[in-house]
Amino acid sequence: MPSKPDHVLKLKRMGIDTHQEAVVYLRSDALVCRAEGFQAQARVKIKLKEKFIIATLNILYDGLLDRGQAGLSEIAWERLGAQPGDEAEFSHAPTVESLSDLRAKVYGHPFSKAALSSMVGDIVAGRYADVHLASFITACADRSLNLDEITYLTEAMVESGESLTWSQSPIMDKHCVGGLPGNRTTPIVVAIVSAFGLVIPKTSSRAITSPAGTADTMEVFTKVDLSLSEMRQVVEKEGACLAWGGNMHLSPADDILIRVEKALDLDSEGQLIASVLSKKKAAGSTHVLMDIPTGPTAKVRSKERAQEIAALLEEVGRRIGLQVSSVITDGSQPVGRRIGPVLEALDVLAVLRQEKEAPKDLEERSLLLASKLLELSGKVAKGEGWKLAQEILTSGQAWKKFYAICKAQGGFTEPSLAEYSQKVCAQASGVLKSINNRQLARVAKLAGAPLDKKAGVELNFKLGDSVEKGQPLFTLYAESPGELNYALAYVRRHEQMFELEA
Amino acid sequence: MPSKPDHVLKLKRMGIDTHQEAVVYLRSDALVCRAEGFQAQARVKIKLKEKFIIATLNILYDGLLDRGQAGLSEIAWERLGAQPGDEAEFSHAPTVESLSDLRAKVYGHPFSKAALSSMVGDIVAGRYADVHLASFITACADRSLNLDEITYLTEAMVESGESLTWSQSPIMDKHCVGGLPGNRTTPIVVAIVSAFGLVIPKTSSRAITSPAGTADTMEVFTKVDLSLSEMRQVVEKEGACLAWGGNMHLSPADDILIRVEKALDLDSEGQLIASVLSKKKAAGSTHVLMDIPTGPTAKVRSKERAQEIAALLEEVGRRIGLQVSSVITDGSQPVGRRIGPVLEALDVLAVLRQEKEAPKDLEERSLLLASKLLELSGKVAKGEGWKLAQEILTSGQAWKKFYAICKAQGGFTEPSLAEYSQKVCAQASGVLKSINNRQLARVAKLAGAPLDKKAGVELNFKLGDSVEKGQPLFTLYAESPGELNYALAYVRRHEQMFELEA
Repeated sequence: MPSKPDHVLKLKRMGIDTHQEAVVYLRSDALVCRAEGFQAQARVKIKLKEKFIIATLNILYDGLLDRGQAGLSEIAWERLGAQPGDEAEFSHAPTVESLSDLRAKVYGHPFSKAALSSMVGDIVAGRYADVHLASFITACADRSLNLDEITYLTEAMVESGESLTWSQSPIMDKHCVGGLPGNRTTPIVVAIVSAFGLVIPKTSSRAITSPAGTADTMEVFTKVDLSLSEMRQVVEKEGACLAWGGNMHLSPADDILIRVEKALDLDSEGQLIASVLSKKKAAGSTHVLMDIPTGPTAKVRSKERAQEIAALLEEVGRRIGLQVSSVITDGSQPVGRRIGPVLEALDVLAVLRQEKEAPKDLEERSLLLASKLLELSGKVAKGEGWKLAQEILTSGQAWKKFYAICKAQGGFTEPSLAEYSQKVCAQASGVLKSINNRQLARVAKLAGAPLDKKAGVELNFKLGDSVEKGQPLFTLYAESPGELNYALAYVRRHEQMFELEA
Repeated sequence: MPSKPDHVLKLKRMGIDTHQEAVVYLRSDALVCRAEGFQAQARVKIKLKEKFIIATLNILYDGLLDRGQAGLSEIAWERLGAQPGDEAEFSHAPTVESLSDLRAKVYGHPFSKAALSSMVGDIVAGRYADVHLASFITACADRSLNLDEITYLTEAMVESGESLTWSQSPIMDKHCVGGLPGNRTTPIVVAIVSAFGLVIPKTSSRAITSPAGTADTMEVFTKVDLSLSEMRQVVEKEGACLAWGGNMHLSPADDILIRVEKALDLDSEGQLIASVLSKKKAAGSTHVLMDIPTGPTAKVRSKERAQEIAALLEEVGRRIGLQVSSVITDGSQPVGRRIGPVLEALDVLAVLRQEKEAPKDLEERSLLLASKLLELSGKVAKGEGWKLAQEILTSGQAWKKFYAICKAQGGFTEPSLAEYSQKVCAQASGVLKSINNRQLARVAKLAGAPLDKKAGVELNFKLGDSVEKGQPLFTLYAESPGELNYALAYVRRHEQMFELEA
């Protein structure tokens, strides 16, 4: 027998981003592969000091590793907290007990509170491979979770991460179920309600697959990557913040599940509700307004469905101690006329500063949501919200508050347009009948959004508008000529993106 | 714009075994990542000449690739048919249309014939990522496929691969649903029924997670890796073969699904039936006998369940033109006394040569299955099979036929025991109450099985036998002292593997 046990190997950081699935690379001739009976895709336990992770095995036939070395993907390296030169122990991964609860659900038994609690714990600890996550998501898809299961899942998701507490009350929040392109109401709504005096510590996400998230847009104006204590200071001072929520470890299971959900393109009513409400509960909110855009190409297709979801949100909210109210809004077309972080920031600014060219639809949606939030707080009588919100906006108080929030977060920067732009003109005359939103988002991304903040698209027309041949349909913005050309090439290959009816 | 389009990259074989999920490695600074908006785990289409594959993206931050290079995992390289120096085009993977059929099933609509046909086609073409396979398996789990869906799935699996046709009729076959350790009846049954004159072109699998498959055991005697034409010559000459089926591309979807099924540990009645029957149909069989071992730790737990499965096998068989009959057998303990390719081969040989120490349980199971096959063929009257099978075995005709089949496949080799062995003795006296079969299989694998053909375990007792302290409980065999020690160390750490009741 060798003096060092065979199952101890020196760790090497491979510099391979395998996303959230931890991967370990072992040489095909490693004794541990043979001895432990490891095959590619096996689940391997890696123990380093008092910490262990479970990783999926890839076997190396090439000279990427020396004898006695084991490679780790980025997420494996990070989860294990490895340092160069560390040696770890390798063995078969233990059975993940909660997978038997998953199997029981697949075989027709509802989840218990304890089952969901341990499942969510295992998911957050990285003990589920992507195939297990896919199976979990499939088992929860559509309406296969009942009201109890949704409540347990929400509670488990809250418990699996950090929770904020606030000395003030009420703590207001808003959320849009199933985003709509350009629907950047959040900065305006937060400015209005906090100008009134309500506390609204808003955290938002960055874009995952879209050209801009609220956090990306806010980053144009100010610093959004706040620590928890920085965020508290801002809220202490201004009664509100507009920060990025990604660093706060609120309901971390959701971030893991959402990636696989996207790959499967499966909707789960129960997971949608648990995901939204757990983040709000963990953030310490007490009153939450839900914006549910509804329309034929939106996430929620019919008014009836929107009402069902609203009812569930309100009931699960009640059970976990959140007062939830919903507004069903028009989800038939994009909001505003600009796509991309800076361009959407300009739309937001135009509304806040009450400029002439401010997009009316964005302003009206913001006022509607702000008025409902004011009323939900109990501090404003039903029916009085709209007038009040409008006053706060038109008087400039909202703009002043927004500026103050930005200052408190680290300063206010005036957005400016990209250096490179190109107008794309109509090839024929007609009435604008449809816009392929998916392709339009793609154009903005090809131009560089969201990483290039100034990249994106500015539309000159809305559905139903008349367009003359040769008139600019939209303007493309980019931070380099190469990316502008790349996006233009795509536009030329997809001329049917804008449908004009003669 | 550069003269060469950005999305053309030179392919590099990375030598990384990612199992069946094709993986492509791109540098984080590759223009194609940025321009196409690729993120880790995105699905990427790679086109080389007239061929394309879909692969999952891993992003590289280290210097493993030069600028302008893209790395491929082993399965990606193989599926694409790439050669060193090839350049391929990279783009976003197209939507896999059949995934919408999968979603429809998850949302409660049964699969149509067309849906299952295109899904199985996409699975075989490698267009499903493992997460999609996991979702498919979850959606099919338990009894969620109805009789029509099971039939469509079976037909789709047959169509997705090669099919054999034979001029003779009937074509006999047998299959064991949910293997039992040591249940190596196949060589004996094939020898008996082909000695009688029935045609039985038997293909078997190698071990996936067990210490030996029938193909591994047969390889001890003769060549099993036959091409289709070699197999036909053997069957032409002897009316039977005992070959490895892995190279024949019969129902290839099954091989892909089974890996993810194992990872999820989910059983699907429908998939079990489709998997078994599609392989038999594709192999050109007309009459199939199913052995369904039933017992508390077997795959099928109760007699009622075994009868339900038998009824489904027979009905789906009828619909696709296969005459199926089932035998429910005792699945409460391993069959024979030896585990490992050579050791199981010795058990088989002892029965065929009617040696004194031949394991009775293996002989009786083989006679039962052979007699049922004889009767199923219609050439032997009901009730006459057993006597006939026994005659063929005891008269030495079966052994003669087995030897002739081996000769036709490439020659007969007499098995011999491993050089290194060690007896493991009982630490106390008592009646053998239980054997942990899972741990016992692990010991055989640690000793080197199935790759080291002579490695394995020979048991000296069956359940209920009395054991004296110091008597050898079992003998461990290995081809090197290192592996013998490795297996012994595991045995010492797991002394409760054999439970003795005083």
